[in-house]
Amino acid sequence: MIDILDSTLRDGAQAEGISFTIEDKLKIVSALDRLGAAYIEAGNPASNPKDLELFRRLREKSWERAKIAAFGATRRPGLPAGEDAQVAVLLSSGAPATVIFGKSWDFHVTEVIKTSLSENLAMIRETIDFLKERGREVIFDAEHFFDGYKANRDYALETLRAAAGASCVCLCDTNGGAFFDEIGEITRVVASRFPGMKIGAHCHNDGGMAVAGSVAAVFSGAEHVQGTLTGFGERCGNADLAAIIANLQLKRGYTCIPPENMELLTETARLIGEIAGGSLRGNAPYVGRSAFAHKAGMHIDGVKKASAAFEHVEPSSVGNERRFLISEVSGRGAVLPEIRKIAPEITKDSPETEAVLRELKRLENKGWQFEAAEGSVALIIRKLLGRYRQFFELVDYDVIVISGRCARAMIKIKVGESEKITAAEGDGPVDALNKALRKALSGFYPELKSVRLTDYKVRLLSVRAKFPTASVVRVLIESSDGNRSWSTVGVASDIIHASWAALTDSIEYKLNEG
Amino acid sequence: MIDILDSTLRDGAQAEGISFTIEDKLKIVSALDRLGAAYIEAGNPASNPKDLELFRRLREKSWERAKIAAFGATRRPGLPAGEDAQVAVLLSSGAPATVIFGKSWDFHVTEVIKTSLSENLAMIRETIDFLKERGREVIFDAEHFFDGYKANRDYALETLRAAAGASCVCLCDTNGGAFFDEIGEITRVVASRFPGMKIGAHCHNDGGMAVAGSVAAVFSGAEHVQGTLTGFGERCGNADLAAIIANLQLKRGYTCIPPENMELLTETARLIGEIAGGSLRGNAPYVGRSAFAHKAGMHIDGVKKASAAFEHVEPSSVGNERRFLISEVSGRGAVLPEIRKIAPEITKDSPETEAVLRELKRLENKGWQFEAAEGSVALIIRKLLGRYRQFFELVDYDVIVISGRCARAMIKIKVGESEKITAAEGDGPVDALNKALRKALSGFYPELKSVRLTDYKVRLLSVRAKFPTASVVRVLIESSDGNRSWSTVGVASDIIHASWAALTDSIEYKLNEG
Repeated sequence: MIDILDSTLRDGAQAEGISFTIEDKLKIVSALDRLGAAYIEAGNPASNPKDLELFRRLREKSWERAKIAAFGATRRPGLPAGEDAQVAVLLSSGAPATVIFGKSWDFHVTEVIKTSLSENLAMIRETIDFLKERGREVIFDAEHFFDGYKANRDYALETLRAAAGASCVCLCDTNGGAFFDEIGEITRVVASRFPGMKIGAHCHNDGGMAVAGSVAAVFSGAEHVQGTLTGFGERCGNADLAAIIANLQLKRGYTCIPPENMELLTETARLIGEIAGGSLRGNAPYVGRSAFAHKAGMHIDGVKKASAAFEHVEPSSVGNERRFLISEVSGRGAVLPEIRKIAPEITKDSPETEAVLRELKRLENKGWQFEAAEGSVALIIRKLLGRYRQFFELVDYDVIVISGRCARAMIKIKVGESEKITAAEGDGPVDALNKALRKALSGFYPELKSVRLTDYKVRLLSVRAKFPTASVVRVLIESSDGNRSWSTVGVASDIIHASWAALTDSIEYKLNEG
Repeated sequence: MIDILDSTLRDGAQAEGISFTIEDKLKIVSALDRLGAAYIEAGNPASNPKDLELFRRLREKSWERAKIAAFGATRRPGLPAGEDAQVAVLLSSGAPATVIFGKSWDFHVTEVIKTSLSENLAMIRETIDFLKERGREVIFDAEHFFDGYKANRDYALETLRAAAGASCVCLCDTNGGAFFDEIGEITRVVASRFPGMKIGAHCHNDGGMAVAGSVAAVFSGAEHVQGTLTGFGERCGNADLAAIIANLQLKRGYTCIPPENMELLTETARLIGEIAGGSLRGNAPYVGRSAFAHKAGMHIDGVKKASAAFEHVEPSSVGNERRFLISEVSGRGAVLPEIRKIAPEITKDSPETEAVLRELKRLENKGWQFEAAEGSVALIIRKLLGRYRQFFELVDYDVIVISGRCARAMIKIKVGESEKITAAEGDGPVDALNKALRKALSGFYPELKSVRLTDYKVRLLSVRAKFPTASVVRVLIESSDGNRSWSTVGVASDIIHASWAALTDSIEYKLNEG
């Protein structure tokens, strides 16, 4: 059994560009508890006063499996633990567990916190005892342990001895530069020196090896792993717990979370990514949108023949799914399933298959991207196969934005022989256009009333041009009618035209697919 | 000496969302050659006809250090190599090196390409011989080698024996699921079985351990590493060469690229990221924008005292730089340097420092992000310190977008007592506004003529709202006057207002800073 400590709310929140509200944090705690994390490090109440309110809210609920932990430092030099306000705030957080970090590297003791080596040992011992006596479980984070060990092995081990009262002593690669071989070796030494002590590992990804370092520590006897589920964290991030859990549990027989929860891995990581502003990268191991996405023609053929020969695990084992991408390097095998949804009689060797592939490649060269736009792909296929019906025609639109007042769109469309002109106001020009278009069409096509936009992304393609605001803009839109969702794409020299193209594709898709 | 083979143009181009033009590819080859890659795998000419034109263009230049390599498969079963069109196209590419992949996993031989185990060995041997006889250097990629070894060790080793004529035999973890310990062990067995054979490693990141796997292979005797400089690649990406090179060369004494080129690592990776549409992640090890960015208050204090105690390498050793981020978890130590640029007399304990921090945190809670917007931070500080001068005042603006025709902006401003109204046309509403504003101001402030936008990014903050096009929009703008560059931020409920706020901050920054 490996204890998982997730620090998304503490170390993860140190990532550049990430900032959580209290509501965000409560959602993340719920999701991590449901997944089965043993500890959730919810914040550092002394450095961030907002966190005290969070701990108050966390006390109001009971959690299925996770212990809530508050993070803080050992007492300050020369001050009894009972008089250190920072230690007191850990108690007043009410969190049942506390994670206390202390110095293991002699250089940090004498040069950064500027105290004596013996006082540092007393700080560690006394802070742990103080919190334990008051009923708290204490995990000790030995900061910069691996660097400290390399600099002064005896002193680094002394600090662990001082922390022996903690329920777990966690060896931290704080600056993230340690190699998996060192981490493995040093952890093994610690395990043999301190039999019976529960050892943890806390790695950072500055060398791109935090997952391997954590796994190496477990191979050497660590039974507690700290990180963040998505790998978010300061600088290059913390150890990616999703990858660590899946690696250890699916491939090496360890139990990190209840086995029946493995399928929650993908949705939990994506939820955190969404709360953090959409920042879970598509290529995140196991849980990313691209983790089981196949693009190269020959791979797609292979996966269809024998998925176990091309995928390291079954995507559903972590709640993810297999995808086949359509692109310039993909062959007819990738587009055929899309074509067959519309025209089941078509084969790989039909001239239509080749024609569709050629058209998609031509558009991709101009900036289109179809991998995340199956709605637009379906429309292109329909047009090429003669199975496209035009439900409406744009005559023209005008948009006006008046500073500080409003954005308004006027739109004129033709449906059959009848023309219709509508206007709408919105938060910005795209919103106004979207509303005017729906207003114009919903009289003719009531089924559009259920369609709503669920995501909207903008990407500038040639930021290197002289005036980037005049570059090529690609807009990706996700729509849903409550039952199904689909994505469409638009490319143009400006954001309004590109948004318009993606919006109309979304509506045409719905009307054509019925 | 470790040979680095970069496959950004072949395996990297298989990443979801990446598509390179020929011009893009030529730029990437130049940059990788300058960095000092031993081999650049430029494409698979049989599967992508555009690549033949690329190879023609690549033959027109001479390269400093890199050998250009074409990628392809062994001959097809039952067909002499000389009659296989796919092999012929490798020759006609004119690339001095060829990378040939073949099967090492018996299951793939019998179930995927459906031939006999002995025919597969002949395919490997004969294809290598055929290309060598025609003057090509051949690298053999043993596909799925580690899985093959685990399934049928003897046969996997047989395939390497068949490839012994190649200049390098590269062990591939094609599905990306192997652990560093297996890769290390199996590579050691191969090295002892085939003394004198140059061994390579090709890892994928499906388990989040591709860097560690590659490093483990080198520790076991591999002298050739394949990957992509930025880690781009199919699914979860290829092994991240920037991290591998820096890890091995800065920390373990191997030479992967000429030592004097180490400082080019960051700019080369970022150039590739930019060409690939801005997709280099900020937290990429060593080369990301956040790789040496410090956010937590106590870390910032620590780094200032002793950077070697908080950073695993000196940022400049890889051409990167240290940054201090301003955010809700950062303390007064982070904002003080920014304040002092404007008012050198202010100290950490001045009430102004606290006021600035409070204002920045207030705005961050509303969606602002200052980490990449030092121009906007400087203006906020100036306003709070009473050192802000208002150079112009917006009366109002109107923007009209007429479908298929134009986007026009009218803008009215006041400079002192005089009012000015101008209009401009642009590619889209933001471009039109930008042009109108510059036109209105440049008569008053000729120094603005040198200012241009160099980047423009849009982020939607609450995609979970009912109508995402009506969400909170954050716009980040980068500007340059030829000597300096600065970034500014704008947040509003629509893209036009948010862009306007970032644009005016950019201009006000220039005018206030002089």
